Amino acid sequence: REERGERRVQILISGLFSLAGFALTLKLIPIVKEFCLRKGLCGRDINKELNTNTEKIPESLGIVVGTVFLVVVILFQPFVPEMLREYNAALTSILFMLFLGFADDVLDLRWSIKICLSFLAILPLLVSYSGPTNIIVPKPFRPLLGLDVELSYFYHLYMAFIAVFCTNSINIYAGINGLESTQSLLIAMAILVHNFLELQGPYRDAHLSSIFFILPFLATTSGLVYFNWYPSKVFVGDSFTYFSGMTLAVVSIMGHFSKTLLLLFLPQLINFVLSLPQLFGIIHCPRHRVPTFNPKTGKLENSKNLTLLNAFLFLFGPTHEETLVIRLSIFQILCCALAFAVRYSHAMTNIFYDSGATKLP
Amino acid sequence: REERGERRVQILISGLFSLAGFALTLKLIPIVKEFCLRKGLCGRDINKELNTNTEKIPESLGIVVGTVFLVVVILFQPFVPEMLREYNAALTSILFMLFLGFADDVLDLRWSIKICLSFLAILPLLVSYSGPTNIIVPKPFRPLLGLDVELSYFYHLYMAFIAVFCTNSINIYAGINGLESTQSLLIAMAILVHNFLELQGPYRDAHLSSIFFILPFLATTSGLVYFNWYPSKVFVGDSFTYFSGMTLAVVSIMGHFSKTLLLLFLPQLINFVLSLPQLFGIIHCPRHRVPTFNPKTGKLENSKNLTLLNAFLFLFGPTHEETLVIRLSIFQILCCALAFAVRYSHAMTNIFYDSGATKLP
Ligand SMILES: [Mg+2]
Ligand SMILES: [Mg+2]
Repeated sequence: REERGERRVQILISGLFSLAGFALTLKLIPIVKEFCLRKGLCGRDINKELNTNTEKIPESLGIVVGTVFLVVVILFQPFVPEMLREYNAALTSILFMLFLGFADDVLDLRWSIKICLSFLAILPLLVSYSGPTNIIVPKPFRPLLGLDVELSYFYHLYMAFIAVFCTNSINIYAGINGLESTQSLLIAMAILVHNFLELQGPYRDAHLSSIFFILPFLATTSGLVYFNWYPSKVFVGDSFTYFSGMTLAVVSIMGHFSKTLLLLFLPQLINFVLSLPQLFGIIHCPRHRVPTFNPKTGKLENSKNLTLLNAFLFLFGPTHEETLVIRLSIFQILCCALAFAVRYSHAMTNIFYDSGATKLP
Repeated sequence: REERGERRVQILISGLFSLAGFALTLKLIPIVKEFCLRKGLCGRDINKELNTNTEKIPESLGIVVGTVFLVVVILFQPFVPEMLREYNAALTSILFMLFLGFADDVLDLRWSIKICLSFLAILPLLVSYSGPTNIIVPKPFRPLLGLDVELSYFYHLYMAFIAVFCTNSINIYAGINGLESTQSLLIAMAILVHNFLELQGPYRDAHLSSIFFILPFLATTSGLVYFNWYPSKVFVGDSFTYFSGMTLAVVSIMGHFSKTLLLLFLPQLINFVLSLPQLFGIIHCPRHRVPTFNPKTGKLENSKNLTLLNAFLFLFGPTHEETLVIRLSIFQILCCALAFAVRYSHAMTNIFYDSGATKLP
């Protein structure tokens, strides 16, 4: 059909723009890195041998990823005239979070201010959100709640919590080279696959708008991973984690797949739940909760802080930093696979929903 | 009429929100100031006596003004559901510029990058712009051009230049305490008056949306002037000048009064034209083009750089810093008065246009 052909052209253009964004990110990071070093926006890599750990690594390179992402998304606007209302609202939310993250990198804001502002950052999207506000109830809960629940304003509140959770859970699932950027990349890949699978479904326009954000996000984040993977040449900064968390939350809201997103965020969720006792100060919380580097073995060891990193070191034994980030990446991939299993396999959906493909209620 | 009553309520709510924004700005600047000082985001005040000029003044407090402005404008969104498309586009443009300005404060970006990105920042508004793209020709030029000229895409290019001009001309019209913030405040006041006068006219909705941005801008900028006026407790930073220039450009585009805006920008235009030989390197351009402080007399003297500040010192003689900023503010007020004269007086409009009030072509 003609409409489908038009969609393909749009996706193709977005893909080409994103490729250019990937190249631009690769070109800009080494340049902006020097600006960051010159202005003292840098940190030590605490998990390295003593001789290298005095070297300063430039921080906050998320601003390059975020800026190039914005350039791509803004230049693409003329191709989606009919979506601009939500599109611009989404942009405002993401941009606000990028700005907030960068301000945090530079000024070290208080966490109470950050939580307040991240609630606020999602507001433009919530106000412009025109999609459904009901939740289709998984089968086991239907005797209690019925087929679907109209949440109305509570759905907006639910979306706000999604946004705050995503931004902060990515930010605290960190501490070793490349983890922040790689987890974001993997989740984004899973989202892209999900979007393409749902392009035949009833919410195709919602998933289409998600694609237009996730393609440039994937492209620019790939550029970052190239420099941020072990051993890191650059650090990502809160400018990246906040930007990334908000982008993923925003596309899930626009695409109406926030429950699927939470499944993709399983590692972050586990890390968050593990962290709760320390976040709330029930157990002492030091400034850094990273694993302990053992200079004798060159391996990371469990630092007894409540994080998923330490849980992995506890379960599978001390290991090299790169091995740990690979293991955590594999875990992320497994969780994404699980999400798809829950979402698409007939066996699973028969337990939770009526049919394998998304149908309009 | 009922519609008019509804508009009044909206303006009242926007005014109340803005008042709260004013209070919040007054409260936050002293707090964030300490963060800036601690992180070395500060500068010396070069026009002061030696004993005070070693003191560090916190810089880049534009981020507080910008953030509070955003908070107010975002919280106000639910009250203007029908405007959100353009509203969010305008927000994106302003927010992008605020982010860019802050990045410049922290990293000292190259001017070529800044010009490119400020063109890009206005793009979201241009894409969403749905207003007229014609210019009503002033009478003297009508034999040549006709009654009005449909510019189509060239109108978009014209708007882009307005945005780049506004942001950069406010930024270079600087160098003494309080000038950046005060000029922005005075122009914003003139815009507000213009908007209210035009609320009876045919473009009332356009001017209404301008009011919803200019009220919070006025409120938060007033808070900044309080701390930035001579002797400055804080400096505004490029985060403020870029944010301010873009906001003024954006409201003039939304309100379709960009020609009037250029009249209000007369001092900035003069300063820009004066600066051209130095900006293009025809005459040597030092890093700072501020007037010279004479510690013996305590007065500022013409530093022979081509700026409006030095022109005033040349014309009216060396003077105290506060006197100079007062004189320049009076000049700004006179230019605004001139703009209103051109725009509204029957004698003037008879020369340029057909009637005293704006009529649809
Ligand atoms: Mg972080
Ligand atoms: Mg400046």
